[in-house]
Amino acid sequence: MSIVRAAIVGGGVIGAGWAARLIENAIAVTVFDPAPDAQAKMQAVLDNAAQAYAKLTMAPRRDTGTLRFAADLAEAVADADLIVESVPERLDIKRSVYADIEAAARPDALIASSTSGIMPTDLQAGMTHPGRLLVAHPFNPVYLLPVVEIVGGKATDPGAIQRAMDFYPTIGMKPVHITREIEAFVADRLLESLWRESLWLIKDGICTTQELDDIIRYGFGLRFAQMGIFETYRVAGGEAGMRHFMAQFGPCLSWPWSHLTDVPDFNDELVDLIADQSDAQSGHHTIRELERIRDENLVAIQQALKANDWGAGQVLAEYERRLFDGAGHQSEPDLTAPIRTTERRVPPDWTDYNNHMNEARYLQAFADATDAFLRMIGCDADYIASGGSYFTVETHIRHLAEVAANEPILTETQVIAGAGKKLHLFHWLKHADGRLLATGEHMLVHVSLQTRAATEPAARIAKALDEIAQGHARLPAPDGLGRAVGQGR
Amino acid sequence: MSIVRAAIVGGGVIGAGWAARLIENAIAVTVFDPAPDAQAKMQAVLDNAAQAYAKLTMAPRRDTGTLRFAADLAEAVADADLIVESVPERLDIKRSVYADIEAAARPDALIASSTSGIMPTDLQAGMTHPGRLLVAHPFNPVYLLPVVEIVGGKATDPGAIQRAMDFYPTIGMKPVHITREIEAFVADRLLESLWRESLWLIKDGICTTQELDDIIRYGFGLRFAQMGIFETYRVAGGEAGMRHFMAQFGPCLSWPWSHLTDVPDFNDELVDLIADQSDAQSGHHTIRELERIRDENLVAIQQALKANDWGAGQVLAEYERRLFDGAGHQSEPDLTAPIRTTERRVPPDWTDYNNHMNEARYLQAFADATDAFLRMIGCDADYIASGGSYFTVETHIRHLAEVAANEPILTETQVIAGAGKKLHLFHWLKHADGRLLATGEHMLVHVSLQTRAATEPAARIAKALDEIAQGHARLPAPDGLGRAVGQGR
Repeated sequence: MSIVRAAIVGGGVIGAGWAARLIENAIAVTVFDPAPDAQAKMQAVLDNAAQAYAKLTMAPRRDTGTLRFAADLAEAVADADLIVESVPERLDIKRSVYADIEAAARPDALIASSTSGIMPTDLQAGMTHPGRLLVAHPFNPVYLLPVVEIVGGKATDPGAIQRAMDFYPTIGMKPVHITREIEAFVADRLLESLWRESLWLIKDGICTTQELDDIIRYGFGLRFAQMGIFETYRVAGGEAGMRHFMAQFGPCLSWPWSHLTDVPDFNDELVDLIADQSDAQSGHHTIRELERIRDENLVAIQQALKANDWGAGQVLAEYERRLFDGAGHQSEPDLTAPIRTTERRVPPDWTDYNNHMNEARYLQAFADATDAFLRMIGCDADYIASGGSYFTVETHIRHLAEVAANEPILTETQVIAGAGKKLHLFHWLKHADGRLLATGEHMLVHVSLQTRAATEPAARIAKALDEIAQGHARLPAPDGLGRAVGQGR
Repeated sequence: MSIVRAAIVGGGVIGAGWAARLIENAIAVTVFDPAPDAQAKMQAVLDNAAQAYAKLTMAPRRDTGTLRFAADLAEAVADADLIVESVPERLDIKRSVYADIEAAARPDALIASSTSGIMPTDLQAGMTHPGRLLVAHPFNPVYLLPVVEIVGGKATDPGAIQRAMDFYPTIGMKPVHITREIEAFVADRLLESLWRESLWLIKDGICTTQELDDIIRYGFGLRFAQMGIFETYRVAGGEAGMRHFMAQFGPCLSWPWSHLTDVPDFNDELVDLIADQSDAQSGHHTIRELERIRDENLVAIQQALKANDWGAGQVLAEYERRLFDGAGHQSEPDLTAPIRTTERRVPPDWTDYNNHMNEARYLQAFADATDAFLRMIGCDADYIASGGSYFTVETHIRHLAEVAANEPILTETQVIAGAGKKLHLFHWLKHADGRLLATGEHMLVHVSLQTRAATEPAARIAKALDEIAQGHARLPAPDGLGRAVGQGR
């Protein structure tokens, strides 16, 4: 049963993050949170997510899902296929919420707790249908970090686990199934150990929060964005391998670094020390600014890893493949006008030292428009895998106006000629408000990817292209067609 | 006193990593390591570093430094401005090495230990000139990770610390001065706590090494590449700030997660368990492959962060500014031929689904050539900050041949016309073997960045441009000049 409607019970940072990820993935979301400021706080998270997704992917996404606030819990969960529980971390509160959920929800609704520490066996103890409860523990910001820990309790139905493992990748996530439940699962065990040690280092005056953070983000943090602790150490061990590494570094576990195994006193003095240092470190940015900075970095890092086909970048690529597949075949294009080929916002990293979209990105926008057009005539990933493709052999661009980061842009495409091996395209790059930003004229040749030489396209491609070319032959010649650089008007 | 000659004592993974970073930064390196395979192992690291640096930056780097293996320690250190000690982690060995170093080195040479755990006060105890010894603790791969922990002992001269803090940024690093020495300093305290907890999670069968690594690299590892633990939690705490976050999550330190404060038995069974899981996780890649993958990811992540002007990306940007400054003014260009404007290798992320450099990157290569030419006539960062710049208004590209990732490419540039507000350039993109890959013809207009309208360039820019334009006026018109898309030859 597919998940098209979700309920969020508890709209704090995590609940709002879930709402944002679900809505960005076309799922209708109903929220129950009695706090008076819940809607305003959630809207801020949704705004961040919308801005991040505009930059995260150019794949064709469906319309965003709807958001509705319910007056009570029963109304929120009544229709839901998935119920996300993200109320405070107290077992008694959670159990009471599950009782209310079960009284109103469909018995086949999946219930996913966002708890970061409580074992699902304890959560489900009093439930009527405990088989559909599991933990799906996400990480902040939920709409951008892919990982989600999936943990079942003793009474959890294996089918519920499978349903979760199948669902989360469709919303761009990487579910990791933790088969043996423990308090705090895996990630928070690791983070707790780091946090504990960090508190000691600050308390003992070894370093400041700024220095400690710098040591992470200019050092091992860069490594952890792409390889975990075991793979990193495997590489560090060199050709001698993991056993060698373990033999070399294992014994230091018993060195007398005594703090590592104690717990610091958690008192006002420690809180003040850390809060004051944190203010000195980050206080010149508002939390809202830091959220935006963090999101832009997470987007950029995932895109960098996508270019390298690795780790979180692979999750993003797989997500985009699903979106392209889901978009399916477009409806028949209207051939009485140029075709709308792409729509997006200018990614911030497309701008340069002149604070506008860099000249090279104009060609990227046109190349993307060409790719979109080619997919439209059937020259898609499968066709390319079969050995056919189009190569651009000539380009002419008029850079007519500037455009800044995050502005909405679109391309329109007219076929000037398309027959045999040749394809002659003309693109307009426009601001969404209608202003013309640039034109691109491009000559492409169909090639065999084996011989890298010009060949005829497959018959179905030729036919699809011919239909559009015949329609567009009735359109007027674009202004600027056939122009050479520096030629007078 | 600037550092132009360095000695490396101990050529293991860390010593070789230091050698690579120093050599890539034009420093002459002499290595002493009596192991018979030291040279071969070091060469492998230098090869990795050369490949990574080719992608890391397009800034003009000086020639790489020389590498020499010395027959004995005395020969290695005799001339050195900086002596890097990276021998095994045993105090007795290190002290004996310092005695040998002091017998042969200049008294003003800086001695930097790579130790990851021993306190500098203990290291320097028997030295004649202990004031110049400090710890400069780097992270693998040393040639790509920016951070280095700088720790002085009781006898360390503050001038030595200052010299280190001034030097490491010149080779692209981020030194963090730890003012209070403790065993293992800061980063390894944190990593040790993570490692300890990881061993428990594997030993107890909660997850596999693959699952644990995935939870890191699809989750908090992405966060740590750009913000440390305190800044991350500050954001998570929301507008209520760090005190709120501490109050909410502090108490869980005393929850009964007992493993956190124990040490697992480190026996053969545990080593086998982890080594076997690591083989299953990563054994399909050789260590050499994993090193390349890691390096390409670290390069891409730092470039992504550079585009966002944040964290490790700021260190890279600052490093590039130093390189541009260091390159100084070029010698007078030879005006009897087009000017060599750029030289680089095709970055792997410039290639696309057709396994060749994407069409948009052809324009990026030409845009970079234009930027290099503009810097040559004085239109540099300072000039742009003063409010003048050139905008490209028209582009024509002939894409003549394909080129693959990592191939060496170069551009040559001819001024077709350059007077008043207008600049008409013609670029050739060539493979280093001489093959012509593409031509680019570009019309630029000088603008005021305040009004965004065409204006005359500053007199010194106009004069520099005029000299080149007059020289180039005697060159033949390039083949393809003035061509429109699809025009016959």
